[in-house]
Amino acid sequence: MKTFNKHDIKKLKQIARLCRGDILKMTYVANSGHPGGSMSSLEIFLSVFSFANLNPDNPYDPLRDRVVVSHGHTSPGVYSVLGRLGFVDIDQVIAGFRHHSSIFEGHVTRGIPGVEWTTGNLGQGLSAGVGFALAAKMKEQDYHIFVAMSDAEQAKGQVAEARRVAKKYGLSNLTVVIDYNDAQISGRARDVMPVNIRKNYEADGWRVLEVDGHDIEQLLHALSQAVEDKVNPVAILAHTIMGKGVSFMENDVSYHGKPLDKEQLEKALNELGIDNDVEKYMKMRAQLGNQKHEPFHLEYPVKIKVPAGRTYTTKTDNRSAFGNALLDLVKENRNSETPVVAVDCDLATSVKLDGVQKYVPERFLELGVQEHNAAAVAGALSADGVVTFFADFGVFGVSETYNQHRLNAINHTNLKVIVTHCGLNVGEDGKTHHGLDYISAPANWLGYKVIVPADPNQTDRVIRYIASVYGNYLVAMGRAKMMPIVDENGKLFFADNYRFEYGKIDILRKGTDVTVVTCGSVVPNVVEAADKLRGKVSVLNVSCPLDLDEHVLREYGHGKKILVVEDHVATLGLTSLLAKFFLQKGIIPSSFEQIAIQEHAVSGSYEALYEIYGLSSTKIAEKLGQMIS
Amino acid sequence: MKTFNKHDIKKLKQIARLCRGDILKMTYVANSGHPGGSMSSLEIFLSVFSFANLNPDNPYDPLRDRVVVSHGHTSPGVYSVLGRLGFVDIDQVIAGFRHHSSIFEGHVTRGIPGVEWTTGNLGQGLSAGVGFALAAKMKEQDYHIFVAMSDAEQAKGQVAEARRVAKKYGLSNLTVVIDYNDAQISGRARDVMPVNIRKNYEADGWRVLEVDGHDIEQLLHALSQAVEDKVNPVAILAHTIMGKGVSFMENDVSYHGKPLDKEQLEKALNELGIDNDVEKYMKMRAQLGNQKHEPFHLEYPVKIKVPAGRTYTTKTDNRSAFGNALLDLVKENRNSETPVVAVDCDLATSVKLDGVQKYVPERFLELGVQEHNAAAVAGALSADGVVTFFADFGVFGVSETYNQHRLNAINHTNLKVIVTHCGLNVGEDGKTHHGLDYISAPANWLGYKVIVPADPNQTDRVIRYIASVYGNYLVAMGRAKMMPIVDENGKLFFADNYRFEYGKIDILRKGTDVTVVTCGSVVPNVVEAADKLRGKVSVLNVSCPLDLDEHVLREYGHGKKILVVEDHVATLGLTSLLAKFFLQKGIIPSSFEQIAIQEHAVSGSYEALYEIYGLSSTKIAEKLGQMIS
Repeated sequence: MKTFNKHDIKKLKQIARLCRGDILKMTYVANSGHPGGSMSSLEIFLSVFSFANLNPDNPYDPLRDRVVVSHGHTSPGVYSVLGRLGFVDIDQVIAGFRHHSSIFEGHVTRGIPGVEWTTGNLGQGLSAGVGFALAAKMKEQDYHIFVAMSDAEQAKGQVAEARRVAKKYGLSNLTVVIDYNDAQISGRARDVMPVNIRKNYEADGWRVLEVDGHDIEQLLHALSQAVEDKVNPVAILAHTIMGKGVSFMENDVSYHGKPLDKEQLEKALNELGIDNDVEKYMKMRAQLGNQKHEPFHLEYPVKIKVPAGRTYTTKTDNRSAFGNALLDLVKENRNSETPVVAVDCDLATSVKLDGVQKYVPERFLELGVQEHNAAAVAGALSADGVVTFFADFGVFGVSETYNQHRLNAINHTNLKVIVTHCGLNVGEDGKTHHGLDYISAPANWLGYKVIVPADPNQTDRVIRYIASVYGNYLVAMGRAKMMPIVDENGKLFFADNYRFEYGKIDILRKGTDVTVVTCGSVVPNVVEAADKLRGKVSVLNVSCPLDLDEHVLREYGHGKKILVVEDHVATLGLTSLLAKFFLQKGIIPSSFEQIAIQEHAVSGSYEALYEIYGLSSTKIAEKLGQMIS
Repeated sequence: MKTFNKHDIKKLKQIARLCRGDILKMTYVANSGHPGGSMSSLEIFLSVFSFANLNPDNPYDPLRDRVVVSHGHTSPGVYSVLGRLGFVDIDQVIAGFRHHSSIFEGHVTRGIPGVEWTTGNLGQGLSAGVGFALAAKMKEQDYHIFVAMSDAEQAKGQVAEARRVAKKYGLSNLTVVIDYNDAQISGRARDVMPVNIRKNYEADGWRVLEVDGHDIEQLLHALSQAVEDKVNPVAILAHTIMGKGVSFMENDVSYHGKPLDKEQLEKALNELGIDNDVEKYMKMRAQLGNQKHEPFHLEYPVKIKVPAGRTYTTKTDNRSAFGNALLDLVKENRNSETPVVAVDCDLATSVKLDGVQKYVPERFLELGVQEHNAAAVAGALSADGVVTFFADFGVFGVSETYNQHRLNAINHTNLKVIVTHCGLNVGEDGKTHHGLDYISAPANWLGYKVIVPADPNQTDRVIRYIASVYGNYLVAMGRAKMMPIVDENGKLFFADNYRFEYGKIDILRKGTDVTVVTCGSVVPNVVEAADKLRGKVSVLNVSCPLDLDEHVLREYGHGKKILVVEDHVATLGLTSLLAKFFLQKGIIPSSFEQIAIQEHAVSGSYEALYEIYGLSSTKIAEKLGQMIS
């Protein structure tokens, strides 16, 4: 652990003064950004980045401490500290802040040396910190995680969820520092939404320390105490003043998101004893290019062994095929450099994580009925050297955690989201549990690939495939058991030698009159319907709806009658993706129809629901009959 | 307040015994459902529904107390109580439970007499209760709200958020009863995810009572104490036993979601001293029809006055036009039968709720940085006689609260979601703040109409329109100021006499060669580009992308070159909706191109971003030039 003598402290105080100038300058030059909170959190950032085991010359050392800044709008504060501590070039920061050609974006961004997580939406950072802390445990490494947060975001429920997980798993390698300035956009935090922060942390079993958040010695001392605590996660309440350091800014919330004007800047820099050299930076900024900067994505090599697939010949649910494949992967990689881990939200038996839970409990994380936190924890864990499978029902793993996945995508994580219980295939649990958006929701996240396997054999290969490649994948499946898909001759379509290839369309049947495009739980019904009309119906299984194969679709689509069948919301989904692709590529079908879900459905057996909503083999065959005649 | 004598208590105990039998029978007959928790919560349901001011013969009396059951999977318990207390027919319940033709769905469903809110996704019910409690205050009515919850869902962060709002607004008309059985799907609650429930409620300022949750007298006494408390919201921790009442079911979590088999049922009913008459119900069930039941939607008449619109002639942001229109509506309806209320999440100034906050503070609710709870509270409030505007940034009001809106849609609420700061139009705040899914996300909710107005004048009329009609609407807008749209002669397109008509496409320009289909923040750029190519470009403003006008689209689309321009994620959105509509209607354009957002964008001024991502008038004109030549 680092120690700091009087000289070091004096030097840090000097740096703090310079940083305050940097904050005011960069927000002035950008004419945008958040100076108030940056100045409030400044000594926190300076203490944490100085105290943490970090080397500006080797910022991605795998054994480095991780610092997460949850209130990402205080980026001017963070960038100034990183600049003054040698992680980045301070002149580039001041000139480039919030400019499209600069890496110094409006909110702190993963990929900038020293920044571990892109934040901006409040209340996410502690979950990321918990993910990193669990990663350290899984990899048996002893780096520490520091999370800086604002007081306003303590109201966010996800913070309470993260706190509980930290306590449950004894994450003493995690320290939180809260900027307690009692100020937020709408006024005093205690007026906007009263939160007894101390009592909240204590009620969830944390140790709490309190310090003057502008006193670097107190902060460093508290950080030492926190790191020395090998039992509990520790929260440091750092009492601060918004706009600290410039008389007229202090405690004035109007500077939350507003830079100073020219006159105010002059006055403020004068108070701080700093030369006003913004003209220089204005000139530098004017020279910046028209091109946007390219994002720098952190990735790690996925070093795992992938055991051979299993083949199913009897009625099986895809979720069991998933569970078995995952258990194979977890077992095989017990001692791999890259651990494979399962994350559950109190549904282990239903989502088939119970095998991992039972046989390899050290690779199983039970995060409770706390999906928001779980999705964010899983994302950070997956980004920090751990291949992570987050399994949940469709309504939780897609709908409830929608924004957490969008933020994972922004952070370029390596998460494998497995959603079971998708579609009307769920049956009796009814509309609150019918996850109908497993294609159309992830399509919006810009950074998740979607796979909807057709049967247990395809599911098995998909799971093995996604474990082995870096990136975010969402794999969607239903609840019910189904017979494995067979070809015209009754042989397994996805047989022993089948290997999953991302983006490949499976031509399950070839016919003359109509092409059915489909995926997921309804594939067996479509095949059964097609077989009733032998030779007249082609069946395309599009398991990768976001990445379509032009060659196959042109051959089976252009000038053909098309029927899309999906156990998915009708508005947007496979049908829309296909329609857009068709028109953009000039593939013009002679007709284009759809069977999908137009409304929140009733509760009932999935067979009954498929009959009612047109997805049974009978109803599909009827529709095909009409199209052919 | 109701009082209960010894005879009443004895009678309730008798009913409890019958209800236990009903629970076991209906889950057996349905071969599906959750008996364990239902038996655990039974005395809670029976006490609450007996104690509450409810009349089975007039279940929708506006002044009735509201009972919300948050752990909706305990529907067998709720339905059995409602049956035995005369709200519904118990025979229909037992025979129809979870059958597609029956209203008795798998999870408790709004529209069944006595059921105020459809739940199933855990952790939502307290927010709904807070919404109803706030509605009572807004309407100056003194009904009480009871929320029954499970212990496992206390882990969910949204519960903490709701708790804080209840305390902040002094909702002493709200009482929570928690079924503290220490059991959930994955085992003992304390093992799955430790939550110190008592300390959590106390830390958030609630009064906590503890009772034996199977002792009806204790429960009724605690309910009296809670209702008598005119200062604090009260939580009653009711200690219970999962599967209570049948020896072999008690404390066995395997009965969480599993009905008894024939032999077990016989044994259990025998223990309870109840005749086994399930054969009768099996026969009744076999007679049920093939048709699904139609949902019964609760609605109220929206009795508000709509003041005349404002017309803007200078550069204005749509969000200011929204704020002004809302303030007009709130002021005008200060004393209306239907209040108009604004819900904020610490962004009042940015989302332009500050007018309401300042001038009509009693119609302004500040719910803090707690979006999940806020969206659910706003939904319940809107369903209970209050026209509710929930304003937030796109990333929070759409992405973060995605599932809460899906659940509002299921509950057929009357919520007006206004999302500002959508698209790259947000600019410097960067990718975490670029809300790019304001069309494609709500499209999945099945129950929200989407409107993307083109300019401040259209925005003004849209806001007045949606306030006056029952239903959920999402209105999306950017951040920047823009000049109002004018016609070819420079006159306001949306002028004084303009009235918004849902679904109408505005033909902003008529041209010969290309049709641009667009909406929202980029409309001015499209019009400017079109005007550079005078006479060659038609511009269609599709402000209602989910409900397209076939007539106009056929005229301007069939055989035409089409360019779709949207400041929205490219994968799914206006382009996809249009493509699907075109192919389904046989409207075949001669070419079909798109300008939209393909990736998470960088931070920068919105003008720079529009230039980089092809949405500036220059770039649009360039594209049009290529298409025309």
